[in-house]
Amino acid sequence: MCGIFGIYSNERINVAKRIYYGLFALQHRGQEGAGIATSDGRGFHHYKGIGLVSEVFTNNELQSLYGHIGIGHVRYSTTGDSTIENCQPFVVKSSFGPIAIAHNGDIVNSTILKRELEKMGHIFISSTDSEVIAQLLVRELLKTEDIIEAIKNTAKKLIGAYSLLIMFNDKLIAVRDPNGFKPLCIGRDENCIYFASENCALDTVNAEFVRDIKPGEIVIVDNGEINCYKIEKPCEEVNTELNLPVNNYIYNNCVSTCMFEYVYFARPDSIIDGISVYEVRRKIGRILAKEHPCDADLVSPVPDSGITFALGYSEELEIPYYEGLIKNRYVGRTFILPTQEERDLAVRLKLNPVKSILKDKKVVLVDDSIVRGTTSRRIVNMLKKAGAKEVHLRIGSPRIISPCFYGIDMATKEELIASYKTDEEICKYVNADSLGYLSIEGLVKAIGRKDLCLACVSGYYPTDVSCKF
Amino acid sequence: MCGIFGIYSNERINVAKRIYYGLFALQHRGQEGAGIATSDGRGFHHYKGIGLVSEVFTNNELQSLYGHIGIGHVRYSTTGDSTIENCQPFVVKSSFGPIAIAHNGDIVNSTILKRELEKMGHIFISSTDSEVIAQLLVRELLKTEDIIEAIKNTAKKLIGAYSLLIMFNDKLIAVRDPNGFKPLCIGRDENCIYFASENCALDTVNAEFVRDIKPGEIVIVDNGEINCYKIEKPCEEVNTELNLPVNNYIYNNCVSTCMFEYVYFARPDSIIDGISVYEVRRKIGRILAKEHPCDADLVSPVPDSGITFALGYSEELEIPYYEGLIKNRYVGRTFILPTQEERDLAVRLKLNPVKSILKDKKVVLVDDSIVRGTTSRRIVNMLKKAGAKEVHLRIGSPRIISPCFYGIDMATKEELIASYKTDEEICKYVNADSLGYLSIEGLVKAIGRKDLCLACVSGYYPTDVSCKF
Amino acid sequence: MCGIFGIYSNERINVAKRIYYGLFALQHRGQEGAGIATSDGRGFHHYKGIGLVSEVFTNNELQSLYGHIGIGHVRYSTTGDSTIENCQPFVVKSSFGPIAIAHNGDIVNSTILKRELEKMGHIFISSTDSEVIAQLLVRELLKTEDIIEAIKNTAKKLIGAYSLLIMFNDKLIAVRDPNGFKPLCIGRDENCIYFASENCALDTVNAEFVRDIKPGEIVIVDNGEINCYKIEKPCEEVNTELNLPVNNYIYNNCVSTCMFEYVYFARPDSIIDGISVYEVRRKIGRILAKEHPCDADLVSPVPDSGITFALGYSEELEIPYYEGLIKNRYVGRTFILPTQEERDLAVRLKLNPVKSILKDKKVVLVDDSIVRGTTSRRIVNMLKKAGAKEVHLRIGSPRIISPCFYGIDMATKEELIASYKTDEEICKYVNADSLGYLSIEGLVKAIGRKDLCLACVSGYYPTDVSCKF
Amino acid sequence: MCGIFGIYSNERINVAKRIYYGLFALQHRGQEGAGIATSDGRGFHHYKGIGLVSEVFTNNELQSLYGHIGIGHVRYSTTGDSTIENCQPFVVKSSFGPIAIAHNGDIVNSTILKRELEKMGHIFISSTDSEVIAQLLVRELLKTEDIIEAIKNTAKKLIGAYSLLIMFNDKLIAVRDPNGFKPLCIGRDENCIYFASENCALDTVNAEFVRDIKPGEIVIVDNGEINCYKIEKPCEEVNTELNLPVNNYIYNNCVSTCMFEYVYFARPDSIIDGISVYEVRRKIGRILAKEHPCDADLVSPVPDSGITFALGYSEELEIPYYEGLIKNRYVGRTFILPTQEERDLAVRLKLNPVKSILKDKKVVLVDDSIVRGTTSRRIVNMLKKAGAKEVHLRIGSPRIISPCFYGIDMATKEELIASYKTDEEICKYVNADSLGYLSIEGLVKAIGRKDLCLACVSGYYPTDVSCKF
Ligand SMILES: Nc1ncnc2c1ncn2[C@@H]1O[C@H](COP(=O)(O)OP(=O)(O)O)[C@@H](O)[C@H]1O
Ligand SMILES: Nc1ncnc2c1ncn2[C@@H]1O[C@H](COP(=O)(O)OP(=O)(O)O)[C@@H](O)[C@H]1O
Ligand SMILES: Nc1ncnc2c1ncn2[C@@H]1O[C@H](COP(=O)(O)OP(=O)(O)O)[C@@H](O)[C@H]1O
Ligand SMILES: Nc1ncnc2c1ncn2[C@@H]1O[C@H](COP(=O)(O)OP(=O)(O)O)[C@@H](O)[C@H]1O
Ligand code: SF4
Ligand code: SF4
Ligand code: SF4
Ligand code: SF4
Ligand SMILES: [Mg+2]
Ligand SMILES: [Mg+2]
Ligand SMILES: [Mg+2]
Ligand SMILES: [Mg+2]
Repeated sequence: MCGIFGIYSNERINVAKRIYYGLFALQHRGQEGAGIATSDGRGFHHYKGIGLVSEVFTNNELQSLYGHIGIGHVRYSTTGDSTIENCQPFVVKSSFGPIAIAHNGDIVNSTILKRELEKMGHIFISSTDSEVIAQLLVRELLKTEDIIEAIKNTAKKLIGAYSLLIMFNDKLIAVRDPNGFKPLCIGRDENCIYFASENCALDTVNAEFVRDIKPGEIVIVDNGEINCYKIEKPCEEVNTELNLPVNNYIYNNCVSTCMFEYVYFARPDSIIDGISVYEVRRKIGRILAKEHPCDADLVSPVPDSGITFALGYSEELEIPYYEGLIKNRYVGRTFILPTQEERDLAVRLKLNPVKSILKDKKVVLVDDSIVRGTTSRRIVNMLKKAGAKEVHLRIGSPRIISPCFYGIDMATKEELIASYKTDEEICKYVNADSLGYLSIEGLVKAIGRKDLCLACVSGYYPTDVSCKF
Repeated sequence: MCGIFGIYSNERINVAKRIYYGLFALQHRGQEGAGIATSDGRGFHHYKGIGLVSEVFTNNELQSLYGHIGIGHVRYSTTGDSTIENCQPFVVKSSFGPIAIAHNGDIVNSTILKRELEKMGHIFISSTDSEVIAQLLVRELLKTEDIIEAIKNTAKKLIGAYSLLIMFNDKLIAVRDPNGFKPLCIGRDENCIYFASENCALDTVNAEFVRDIKPGEIVIVDNGEINCYKIEKPCEEVNTELNLPVNNYIYNNCVSTCMFEYVYFARPDSIIDGISVYEVRRKIGRILAKEHPCDADLVSPVPDSGITFALGYSEELEIPYYEGLIKNRYVGRTFILPTQEERDLAVRLKLNPVKSILKDKKVVLVDDSIVRGTTSRRIVNMLKKAGAKEVHLRIGSPRIISPCFYGIDMATKEELIASYKTDEEICKYVNADSLGYLSIEGLVKAIGRKDLCLACVSGYYPTDVSCKF
Repeated sequence: MCGIFGIYSNERINVAKRIYYGLFALQHRGQEGAGIATSDGRGFHHYKGIGLVSEVFTNNELQSLYGHIGIGHVRYSTTGDSTIENCQPFVVKSSFGPIAIAHNGDIVNSTILKRELEKMGHIFISSTDSEVIAQLLVRELLKTEDIIEAIKNTAKKLIGAYSLLIMFNDKLIAVRDPNGFKPLCIGRDENCIYFASENCALDTVNAEFVRDIKPGEIVIVDNGEINCYKIEKPCEEVNTELNLPVNNYIYNNCVSTCMFEYVYFARPDSIIDGISVYEVRRKIGRILAKEHPCDADLVSPVPDSGITFALGYSEELEIPYYEGLIKNRYVGRTFILPTQEERDLAVRLKLNPVKSILKDKKVVLVDDSIVRGTTSRRIVNMLKKAGAKEVHLRIGSPRIISPCFYGIDMATKEELIASYKTDEEICKYVNADSLGYLSIEGLVKAIGRKDLCLACVSGYYPTDVSCKF
Repeated sequence: MCGIFGIYSNERINVAKRIYYGLFALQHRGQEGAGIATSDGRGFHHYKGIGLVSEVFTNNELQSLYGHIGIGHVRYSTTGDSTIENCQPFVVKSSFGPIAIAHNGDIVNSTILKRELEKMGHIFISSTDSEVIAQLLVRELLKTEDIIEAIKNTAKKLIGAYSLLIMFNDKLIAVRDPNGFKPLCIGRDENCIYFASENCALDTVNAEFVRDIKPGEIVIVDNGEINCYKIEKPCEEVNTELNLPVNNYIYNNCVSTCMFEYVYFARPDSIIDGISVYEVRRKIGRILAKEHPCDADLVSPVPDSGITFALGYSEELEIPYYEGLIKNRYVGRTFILPTQEERDLAVRLKLNPVKSILKDKKVVLVDDSIVRGTTSRRIVNMLKKAGAKEVHLRIGSPRIISPCFYGIDMATKEELIASYKTDEEICKYVNADSLGYLSIEGLVKAIGRKDLCLACVSGYYPTDVSCKF
């Protein structure tokens, strides 16, 4: 995932603190690291570190980050490589001036692009896509000297997901990949233009939401003026040898926004491409209830991700909603984890059942997804130990059967329980009394748009992913 | 508030890590500081610091805290005096051996006791009640040499709230004041005896709940054996000059457990004196609905404290429940707060409305209490700005009109809006369309017991508080 | 050891930063911890921590320490108990107001005093003598209400070494024990009165040296006025059962200033009781040369403590002086020490021979003292390995045969090599070609005063030390 | 300056801790930052940070740095740009595998090279020469695929000073520029090959000194074997327009080792190109005495750099040597510096006179050099205030009249007092009674070799420096 936030101020005010607040509102998109780069017209300042926004920055750092243009990033660690080098924004000096890049998404062919660049003599100090993009961009700048052309040409080479904020000299540029995998929107107030991964961050800094950036759109703010451009979608032949049929839902167009943004990642108070995340989740709950009803005493979520689904489910079937599990809110990055032998403890530290509610009850338990199945199993057992008579598991997304190559670290295919077990087997494994997944159709209906990526639940990828196999 | 947790292990195992997990489950009772003291039979080890449990302790510290007996404390800062000296457990050496004390509550007459001790030549390095109690205890030990007698005699001098864990040489002792203001319970597993402020902490370490410690009870674990004693309630003449009539609800007995533990402080998955906190909150919601119904489109809580009330309210009146406000979960101690001018930002950083839900709706907004009214006002305005047509505020507790002297830092009487404004005036001040508080009767009914402290909502104090005026 | 520094300003200026610089100049007296307490007339502020002065304090802490009176302390750890509780100043609240104490020295009978206090109901949170002194002081204040009388009475109970700075309400008081074991001096500038362990700290803050505080003197600054008082030396019967004859050199008076301050502890640019430390060391070198001449090619010190001795030795015998060993100046507290097996490495990290100087030379190696002999042995071997033909070891102090009970952590008697080996045996053990210690007479002559403590080199203690055996 | 240290172990032992000790011995060459990169045959590990070696690394970091090959770096900050990005080793991934570079020296034409690389599409994330070298190296590897050829070709482009350690896949390579500006030597023990800036670091890890690396030499360790190659010195036309005549002393060859390594930078226990630093400094003192004798009472150094010169001076003229100034050894990076107004304090914090020595004496004060003259002036005044009758300043190096472009941050030409004032004027400015600089001839004689860089004292640069004007 990752979250990005940028500001261009027409007045010479310092924007770092506002970026700090914007990133804070996007913290749920990445807790591993944070960074801010600013430009004061004469040069760039940047600072980044491992940890939460509130841990990385003190007043000292924010004060050193002066400038009226700036971008920030919160990092979600996909591969455990949480070194400071991999934190963003990625800031470099080129012959065209300094460049800072903040990236949300995963470039499917980045290894190939990297290898090509290396063969041309380029070197890499991080393992981020941002660095690959920066190098490509500078090469294109050498050819065209026009930043928009350079971005367009760079985009032609990139396969995958990229919502980008680029600070280039005195310009601030936002780019959303032609598939529109990841969200990105524009805000404004009297003096400033804003860009943010989710509009909840605009609310936080009291900026007005203008609109979502369109898939394949480039928005540039220069000299106080905004201009928009369009990336021509590189014509792409899906590798058919791998027998990966084109996704039904995206057949007629190339836009494929990640459905999991609606289901899980985004904050419920965000609106993505005009659709309220909260309403999608509530509808999912209702559709799930229709698809997999249950004659239970109560509906309870696995907090926090299951809450809104559970409310919808409860509403649809008129079964009372209860918070049967309490989540400890202090679970964080620096906590001393229990050792291997104490695995159950890990779940107990995070969740605790409310016994008085569950005692002798038939419970519908609602969660967002099942990955390996081990956590679900522990939670179901926890409920049963707390006295629940029956536990009926309902999942607000379809079976996850294929890995994501667009920025979500889900586990390998082999680890995905739904890729090798039937529903019945899974139900038995997690020790539930019944199990119901949302259907793909139900999901698409709940979201209310068809131009979605559904790769992880369907196995049909909206881009060429042959290099990943 | 504060939270306390203790373990006595019959086997020579190290208990520090388990105390760490227990404190982690009690973190909501205090986020300012944390400490652990252990005894390995030969001496005490202790470590404490400013911050969350996970910030204060690393593996290094836990490893240095060996011992099979131990107590821990999470600190809630009442007066901003968050220095390391004021963190607990308070550990001292006396002629009877080392003593460690962890305290939850506030001793009403501690300043008087302190002054008396000082006059006898005692000195104080902290501003904690624990130090006062330690000094009194040692003086009593000098007289009786019997720890139980000493505790009883000390208790005779103390007015106010004290749930205590005392580690004295190889003994572990738990004490709950005769009023039973603050909760304290006993747990066990195969090898250990546990004490905890709330039983949710017992769940976390997989210990079995045994029972609540009774008001005025002393429980001592020594040599693997448990014994219980009773504090004789010091006969107390309530100062009638101050015209503070005896609380109706506590007339016939002296037990007066803090009603706010049920309403706000305790974790919903805890059970205090046999009564489930979750169920009390749900019932409050229902009673509130009966007392102050509303013909609204939806019910929404101020998260997190308003959630369970709102669910009960929604249930009673069959108005749909929606999460109209999203709370940022990363708000914490180290965050760089906005400056004075940016007060609204402070609320926006914490809460954000879900506009798609609220647009053109008549909303019942449910919160736990109103103190100064300024936050409620900001939240109501936030909802209106987000499109809510009407906002009807419902409060899950009675008007707070008097300060608490038993451990809760509520604001002075002058700052308590309900102490000088009528409901109508408050309603207007917070810009709501209607306002309804839970009645004292309703509250007592929801909790289902009468031996409660209701001082802050009634002005009738269950102990002598004359020294506070 | 430890170092202490205090300021009383007549103008309402902040003194914390100046104390910081004063402590910095005294850093050689203690590297384990540092602390400062100030008074602004209305209350005390204090901060302390583990580490060097420059590590403990940042601008933030200094700014919070406002006040026109203040005392500071650098801590030398005698027993490895480097917890924050044991750092000083020790600050307490008493019925007479707040008190802060900074102490240099060791109270011989502190355990006995502590036990007595404990029997009277006092408790202790640290293991410092400062706390014992504070408790005694407050007890005496209860009796007399006069701070000077209270200090005098307290002093009557104390046996041992104590240079004290006491901040009591708006007064600043300096006390030097009747034996005058540890140095303490007075300085001034236009607006302030200063107290410092060594006058080098006065130089650093550009204050003028006024005079040394006399053994047994109490100096109080109150309301801008200075007054001096005299402690009556408690009449003390030296325990003769232990067969510890009265020190020859201190027979006729009770003053017994630690000779090791001149030999080793104090900075060479300090003047103690009117005698220049530098000159003493130079003279020691010359006397040592006369007592143990050597026909060598060159004289080389073990840096830094051996340097001035070696210069005197070289001068006397007209043997060229060379720096045959270079000391790494970055050896510090936080360094990752080699493991047990790598003991030689520990010496190599600190010292390195200059081979070109030593090659085939007869070397006189000069150091300040021999404790266990292991380090000397490693250094001698290092020189031989570097090519030195002969190594003649000369020691600028007499044999250390008895432990110090006045504040220096030297090792137990059993570990002191000179307590159980003859010079010849020691010479052989350290692998030197000859060995010469300064005589006690030579030492006394070099210092030029007789009222010295020589306990560690003579076994004759200037105070009752029976409780230590 | 900077210091570099590398190890190649034939056995699969971890070398990080030994590099840590090696860097510790080289700490005097750079206190701003430290870093280590290791290779375990499968990949590189690296860690770096701001501060001293002992501050940057804890056991945790060292343990994560496993590998049998490794290089380390201590950073000397030339331009205040002490960001983590500018710390070294610089580690990158290229198409030929990972490369780590540690560099001591300054590339004169790096800005030009950087600009050229940028024009070819390269980007830069740091402002280090290491990154420029890495990019050039990879470009050359693309052409030749032979690392030695690549290094040779890269070297042809570089003008200036570079002692380099390069870790490339499983190879460890050391390079010294053809001018041999900076030292670099080889060591060994049973299992390992070592490279170090100074041989004192070899002593510390108990490795045997093998020899200095020759100017223009490349030494490569691969598969346990060592091979040496020669860089062909790029034919260089000294820009005569700028009227910078060729240095007399380097006329017949291109080797020009920095004379300041002998005079100031290197540790006295090091031997550079076969010449003992200690002996050079002693000789300088003697020659200085002959060139500028003085009929004084005593000779005193400005510690530490003046010590050995002062000893030589004293020896030559048979004037007694005294330590008239004591240097505080705790002056470090994190110290809170006095504000602008307190400039004198800055000197007083570092140095303090021993008044008893100086009183009424004619003093020869010996220091290594004069840059701006402000510090010398403060020190001379300090001595006079301490009572010195006369102060005769003697400087162990010639007048510094020209900036260094080879790695030493000396100040701009305008700031160099000797570039615009006569000796008499300087003498008056610093308030000395007489002033004597070492002559260039004297310096060359003391060092005993003619192939030296003397640019800063002569204005004649041994390389083209036209791009600097
Ligand atoms: N401030 C917030 N309030 C409510 N939900 C949030 C907030 N921020 C993120 N979320 C939602 O929380 C969910 C993740 O939290 P949770 O399920 O508790 O964690 P986990 O990832 O461990 O399952 C996501 O669905 C996300 O949309
Ligand atoms: N783990 C938990 N899950 C749910 N509620 C909790 C948890 N821990 C504490 N609480 C409840 O949260 C409420 C306080 O949170 P909240 O209202 O968000 O904060 P604030 O004190 O800022 O209003 C209390 O009512 C407390 O009982
Ligand atoms: N700033 C200083 N300059 C010179 N000597 C000092 C300074 N500060 C302390 N000393 C002296 O240094 C000696 C201690 O240093 P040294 O011998 O290097 O350490 P160690 O205690 O490890 O032997 C003491 O004799 C002390 O008087
Ligand atoms: N361990 C050491 N022992 C003695 N001298 C050293 C050591 N390390 C570095 N030096 C020398 O110290 C000098 C620098 O120290 P000094 O003069 O005190 O600092 P400054 O750079 O502030 O003048 C250099 O001449 C250097 O060669
Ligand atoms: S594969 Fe799944 S998680 Fe990844 S982008 Fe597509 S829908 Fe989202
Ligand atoms: S006054 Fe209120 S908050 Fe305090 S103990 Fe009583 S009920 Fe609880
Ligand atoms: S015993 Fe030795 S070190 Fe201790 S005070 Fe006496 S002379 Fe000093
Ligand atoms: S200019 Fe001076 S400092 Fe620089 S390399 Fe040459 S001699 Fe050394
Ligand atoms: Mg979840
Ligand atoms: Mg709340
Ligand atoms: Mg020494
Ligand atoms: Mg110097």
